[in-house]
Amino acid sequence: MFEINTRLDDHLGRTGTIHTPHGDIQTPAFIPVATKATVKAVLPETMREIGAQALLSNAYHLYLQPGSDIVDEAGGVAAFENWHGPTFTDSGGFQVLSLGSGFKKVLSEEFNGKAHVDGQVAGKKERLANVDDDGVWFRSHLDGSRHRFTPEVSMRIQHELGADIIFAFDELTTLLNSRGYQEEALERTRLWAQRCLRAHKELTHERDTKPYQQLFGVIQGAQYEDLRRKAARDLGNMEIDGQRFDGFGVGGALEKENLGTIVGWVNEELPEDRARHLLGISEPDDLFAGVENGIDTFDCVNPSRVARNAAIYSPDGRFNVNRARHKRDFTPLVEGCQCYTCTHYTKAYIHHLFKAKEMVVNTLTTIHNEYFTIKLVDDIRHHINEGTYWEFKEETLGRFYANSGKKF
Amino acid sequence: MFEINTRLDDHLGRTGTIHTPHGDIQTPAFIPVATKATVKAVLPETMREIGAQALLSNAYHLYLQPGSDIVDEAGGVAAFENWHGPTFTDSGGFQVLSLGSGFKKVLSEEFNGKAHVDGQVAGKKERLANVDDDGVWFRSHLDGSRHRFTPEVSMRIQHELGADIIFAFDELTTLLNSRGYQEEALERTRLWAQRCLRAHKELTHERDTKPYQQLFGVIQGAQYEDLRRKAARDLGNMEIDGQRFDGFGVGGALEKENLGTIVGWVNEELPEDRARHLLGISEPDDLFAGVENGIDTFDCVNPSRVARNAAIYSPDGRFNVNRARHKRDFTPLVEGCQCYTCTHYTKAYIHHLFKAKEMVVNTLTTIHNEYFTIKLVDDIRHHINEGTYWEFKEETLGRFYANSGKKF
Repeated sequence: MFEINTRLDDHLGRTGTIHTPHGDIQTPAFIPVATKATVKAVLPETMREIGAQALLSNAYHLYLQPGSDIVDEAGGVAAFENWHGPTFTDSGGFQVLSLGSGFKKVLSEEFNGKAHVDGQVAGKKERLANVDDDGVWFRSHLDGSRHRFTPEVSMRIQHELGADIIFAFDELTTLLNSRGYQEEALERTRLWAQRCLRAHKELTHERDTKPYQQLFGVIQGAQYEDLRRKAARDLGNMEIDGQRFDGFGVGGALEKENLGTIVGWVNEELPEDRARHLLGISEPDDLFAGVENGIDTFDCVNPSRVARNAAIYSPDGRFNVNRARHKRDFTPLVEGCQCYTCTHYTKAYIHHLFKAKEMVVNTLTTIHNEYFTIKLVDDIRHHINEGTYWEFKEETLGRFYANSGKKF
Repeated sequence: MFEINTRLDDHLGRTGTIHTPHGDIQTPAFIPVATKATVKAVLPETMREIGAQALLSNAYHLYLQPGSDIVDEAGGVAAFENWHGPTFTDSGGFQVLSLGSGFKKVLSEEFNGKAHVDGQVAGKKERLANVDDDGVWFRSHLDGSRHRFTPEVSMRIQHELGADIIFAFDELTTLLNSRGYQEEALERTRLWAQRCLRAHKELTHERDTKPYQQLFGVIQGAQYEDLRRKAARDLGNMEIDGQRFDGFGVGGALEKENLGTIVGWVNEELPEDRARHLLGISEPDDLFAGVENGIDTFDCVNPSRVARNAAIYSPDGRFNVNRARHKRDFTPLVEGCQCYTCTHYTKAYIHHLFKAKEMVVNTLTTIHNEYFTIKLVDDIRHHINEGTYWEFKEETLGRFYANSGKKF
């Protein structure tokens, strides 16, 4: 299902190919997010044109609306959304816990040696999600209705959604949880991984007319080297009824400044013949750190989310096209960029569309930011293959963060 | 600029071609509206694919934001919005008066013999627009700032916007205005038409490196036969410094049930070698009524506006795809429809996107409704050319309004 093409000398990085029933993915690759079975504001043919090789949807959202049974009846998420290529779905664990427990914000903050305070997440009563050893009770963020996810439920939902690559159900923690809680959660995630493998095997058998779905185990362990390595060894070697994980996701609480190091611990332990996905990452420095430490695929909502707020990625960093100085700027968002937006529209037009609150502006800026991110990872792949990765990294990050004071 | 191809026997209807510097328009044709230099939620290439021959933008909106000077700097509205074809702009009069005087709603209601009450429009103090013989003072609906439109200002704005077909500045009235007021307004519009012709000639000379823009006079007169005929004769014969109108728009207060009759009065008087545009009309019965009474082009925001509210045009009338019964309907919006939406997506998916509040749903439903309307007028053209117009009309309207009790 995964083969390695080229390796980065003395590092964990590599280029490769993930084979799926709906096509191959050349790695490293950035996988755009289609949360509710659509990349917000962009049609699937356009995503193909800008180079997307696969799309990732969220099981939690599609379970709540329209319901995974309806997606199943439609022939799976790819058929439903008119995407003629590989698809991923996550397990639902991230959304259940982050939307449910009210610690979403903590996750995106950087960890500045804050005290470990399990109680900083909402108290048990106010929480919309509660974990027990068997699974998670949670309330829908849409209507407050009560639902239960277990490893078996997540596997059934993801089989109904029918993506080519699916993820094991895991417990998400934050950097603010205590070491003790991280250990508990990691053990729960290990036991859930076993149940996921078993349920996946049964569902694969039960639905044997459907194409095989690859199940990726999810490696947690926060900032602790021993926990990350243990989780990677546990899931890397795990076999239940002859079923092993087809690949792995690196998830959960990650200190940005140690991202490469943490990913490296994990990937030193994981079997090297399985693909590795880094969940929810897309900033340029993080992409390089991930790749050289052995990550093959990435997904993130960020390029699309910031696009809708007028923040534009360029080789010289991010800028806001809403600023008054762009009102009469008849140059493209990024000079020389080959994306549809840059080859057909000016900053002045895009500035106008934002001021006029015209929906199509979200389409145009999302196209640009997704193209920028996809192409950056494509270029990384190219430079690994060509043996020019380090020069490319230095030049790219030096330019992108020129005004940030960062060194690479 | 306009040539007639085929005529409808014993009626004013005809097929023809409008020649513009940016391409030909085969008529009758429906011209989709790109109010603020974008068809809401749809990219210009997509509008081309679904058969749009030209786009119409609103001078009022583009004057306020980004400013017609900026559109001029961009090379005109077509270049600004990446539309490689003919464009129209209206004069701004409709928006200035309808948004400004608060009688927008009255206009869209049907006229049921209500008393003539000029005062039913907002009183002079509360109005955001006030007409005098020289022009109109109005307040921006965006920020309340005060502006002045005169025939000369409208002509300058429309020259800066640079559309191929532009309209004379006219005073809009409603069916609720008195006969006396209609006469006053009509005379004002006649005098403004003269000033438009003069200003247009001067601007054409001043900007002689730009492609020629065709100026259409606008025929008002509400529901009064004598006023409509007089207006059509006045503007049809009008010549100022050798400049005549290149075509005509039929505008203003129209009783829906007498639409064909009123349009017929106007077109019996207008010179037949000039194109005639019916402003703001797109319902199937109105399109037929317009065409057989001599209208060549139509524009309307309706197909796009109702699409964003989940109302879908089909040969069997309009339906709402938001209804619960479409949740598991895996058929296209309209069986057999060749639009992009119907050939790639199901009602179930579009239903899901509405419930999920995903922007791309506006793209998909707008594509369908614009395609439906464009194709309906294209089919009318085809059937006039083939000599099968009346059969086509009976079949199409009989089916569309089957459940309405209407007869055709």
